[in-house]
Amino acid sequence: MADKGGLEEAVVADISTSYIDGSIGELIYCGYAIEDLAEKATFEEVLFLLFNNRLPNRAEYQELRLTIARNAAIPDEIITMLQSLPPGTPAMAALRTAVSMLSAFDSEAENLTDKEAAKAKAIRLTGQITTICAAWMRIAKGEAPVQPRADLSVAENFVYMISGEEPEATACAALNVYLVLLAEHGMNASTFTTRVVTATGSDLHSAIVAGIGALKGPSHGGANSAAMNMFLEIGAVDNVEPWFDKYVKSGQRRIMGIGHRVYKSNDPRAGILRRHAEALAESSGKRKWYDIAVKLAETARADEYFIKRNLYPNVDYYSAIVLYTLDLAVDMFTPLFAMSRIAGWSAHVIAQMGGRLIRPKANYVGPRGRMWTPIDER
Amino acid sequence: MADKGGLEEAVVADISTSYIDGSIGELIYCGYAIEDLAEKATFEEVLFLLFNNRLPNRAEYQELRLTIARNAAIPDEIITMLQSLPPGTPAMAALRTAVSMLSAFDSEAENLTDKEAAKAKAIRLTGQITTICAAWMRIAKGEAPVQPRADLSVAENFVYMISGEEPEATACAALNVYLVLLAEHGMNASTFTTRVVTATGSDLHSAIVAGIGALKGPSHGGANSAAMNMFLEIGAVDNVEPWFDKYVKSGQRRIMGIGHRVYKSNDPRAGILRRHAEALAESSGKRKWYDIAVKLAETARADEYFIKRNLYPNVDYYSAIVLYTLDLAVDMFTPLFAMSRIAGWSAHVIAQMGGRLIRPKANYVGPRGRMWTPIDER
Repeated sequence: MADKGGLEEAVVADISTSYIDGSIGELIYCGYAIEDLAEKATFEEVLFLLFNNRLPNRAEYQELRLTIARNAAIPDEIITMLQSLPPGTPAMAALRTAVSMLSAFDSEAENLTDKEAAKAKAIRLTGQITTICAAWMRIAKGEAPVQPRADLSVAENFVYMISGEEPEATACAALNVYLVLLAEHGMNASTFTTRVVTATGSDLHSAIVAGIGALKGPSHGGANSAAMNMFLEIGAVDNVEPWFDKYVKSGQRRIMGIGHRVYKSNDPRAGILRRHAEALAESSGKRKWYDIAVKLAETARADEYFIKRNLYPNVDYYSAIVLYTLDLAVDMFTPLFAMSRIAGWSAHVIAQMGGRLIRPKANYVGPRGRMWTPIDER
Repeated sequence: MADKGGLEEAVVADISTSYIDGSIGELIYCGYAIEDLAEKATFEEVLFLLFNNRLPNRAEYQELRLTIARNAAIPDEIITMLQSLPPGTPAMAALRTAVSMLSAFDSEAENLTDKEAAKAKAIRLTGQITTICAAWMRIAKGEAPVQPRADLSVAENFVYMISGEEPEATACAALNVYLVLLAEHGMNASTFTTRVVTATGSDLHSAIVAGIGALKGPSHGGANSAAMNMFLEIGAVDNVEPWFDKYVKSGQRRIMGIGHRVYKSNDPRAGILRRHAEALAESSGKRKWYDIAVKLAETARADEYFIKRNLYPNVDYYSAIVLYTLDLAVDMFTPLFAMSRIAGWSAHVIAQMGGRLIRPKANYVGPRGRMWTPIDER
C-alpha cells in the first residue's frame, strides 16, 4: 500500500542552496542565515548566491543587475496574447501562459544540456517574469503596460512598471525583502515539480511553467492570497474572535497561512515579514489588516488544537499583509511569489540537469484478468 | 545522502488505472490486457474505462464521443496566439502554451475541488488538444486550420483536420491503436508531474500543462521523435550495421527507443506497434523506415551490452515508424503522445484531487555558518 502519499521520507537530491531546520525555525541560503540576507542583501545578490554558492563582488553584481534589466522586456506578441485573455482570467494562468509562450522567443530555449545557457536563460526569465507581472496588473485594469528600465533593480522595476512613476524607496525596500525571503526553500512542491520535469531532459521554460502551475495551488503559493481573502472576510479587528469561534465551531481548523509541513516551531520568514508589515502599516497609515492578522494569530495560538499541533503563522500569512499594503491586487500575490521563486527554481533546475529520471512507484489495487465484452453486451 | 535520486523505491499512490509487470512484459488498463484493447477498443472507450473503471455501454459511448467532438473547437484567440509564434517554434512549446491559454476560456477552470467538473474539463481538453495538434501542423506550414467535425471520433477528427479531406480508414485505425496504447502507463514521469501539481490543490489545466512539459523531455515523450531522427540519420538499411559499429565505437550505447525503466523484457506496446508499422509499411509502399528499425533492433539485440542489460525496443521505437508513415512531421510525434496521454493524466489528476501535498526531502550538503561580508570586501 502507498503510505501517506506525500513522499515525506524519500530523499530526492543532495542540495546546497538552502537548509531548513523546522524544529528550531532555521533557514539558510548557501550557508547564510535568512535573517542576515533579509536585512542586508538585494534579490539580485541572492540570485547570484543561489547560482554560484557565493556572494558577488561589485562588478559581478552590477553586471547581473544590468543583464536582468536589459533583458526584461517581453515581445509584443506576448502583450497581445495577454490582452486577448477574457476578463477575470486568474493572474497565475496569465503568467503561466506568458512564460510558456516566452520560450518560443528565446533562441536558447531548446538548449537542453548546457548549464551556462540555462543560467543565462533563467537570468533573462527573472526580468521577464517581473515585466509580465507588472504588465498583467495594468492590462487587467485596461491600462497599457509600461516598459522596464535598464537602470533599475528587479524590485524597483516592478514598482516602477505598475505605476509608471518613479519608484518609491520604502515600497521597493519592502518588496526586495519579500523577494529575498521567498527566493528558495528546499524541496517544496513547486521546486520538486521543476526537478521532475528537468529530469526527463526537458527545457528550462517547461520546468518553470510546471513550477508556476504547482505554486498556483491553494496548499502552496496560493496560500498568501487565500490568507488575504480571509483577512478581508473578517474585515475588522473586533470581528476576529467571533469569526474564529464560528469557524472552529463549524468544524474547520485549517487557517490559511497558519501551519507548515516543515516548520514545527516558528517560520523565521514570518517574523521578518511581520516586522516589515508593521513598519508598512505605520508608514502607510493602513494598520487595520496588520492588526487583524496579529489578533487572529494570537487567538489561534491560545487554542489547544493549534498549540498541540505546533501551528504557527508561516511566510504566506504576513506576506499577504505586506503585499496588500503595497497596493497589489490579491490575485497578484502568488505571481509575486513566482517572481521571487524563479531564483530557487532555476538553481534546482540547473543542479538537476543531466540527472536521473524521477519515477516513483504506484501500487495497483484495481481489477485483474477482465475479459473484453462487445459494446452491445455491456 | 540521496540515493540514486530517481525515487525508484518510493510508492506514491494506490492506483487502479494500469498495472505493469515489467519482468514479463505485461500491461493492463483497469484489468484489461493491452493486447485486447489495442485490437478491439477505440480511444474513447479507453478514456471512459480509465475514468470509470468499466467499459461504456453504447449510449454512454455515443455520448462521450459526441461530447468530445462538440467541444473540440478552440477559441480564435488561441489560433491567433499560435499564428504569432516565430517559425521553428517546437510543436510541444506551442501545445504547452495553447493548453495553458485554454484555461482562461474554460468557465470551470478554477473549480479545484469537484471531481465531476474535472472529468468534464478533461473530456473537453481531449478534443481541444486534438484540434491544437492538427491546427499547429497546418499553421507551421502556413495553412489555415480546419475546424473539427461533430460526427467524427478523436482519431478521425485528427486525420480529417490535418488534411481537410475525408479521413482515410487505415490511417484512422492505425492512429486509434496508437492512441489506445499510449493512453496510460502507471506512475511515469509526466503522470507523476500532474499528480505533484494537483496535490498542491492546483487546477486541471496547470497539471496537464506541467505534464506536457515533462513529456517533452528526450528521456520521456521526446524519445519517439529522437528515435525517428536517428532512423533518418541512418537513412538506408545497408547503413544500419556501419552506423551501429561507429556509434558503439564512439563510446555511446544509449539508443533512442531502446530500453525502458520499467520493462526488463518485451514492452508489449512495441510488439503491437511493430505489427501495425509493418502493415502500414506494406500498404503505403514505404517500407524503408520500418526495415531500418527492424534491422537496428536486431543488430542491438546481438550486442552483448544490450543483451546483458535487457534492452529491448520500447513503445517509442515503433511508434516513430507508425507516425512517420502516417505523414506526420517528426516534431509532431510528442504532441501526438500528449493527445493520447491526456486520458491517463486526467484519470490520475482526478484520483489525486484532495490528496496530500507531495513534498520529498532534500539532503543539504552545502556550507553552514557563513558570515555576511559587505560587497566591497568580497
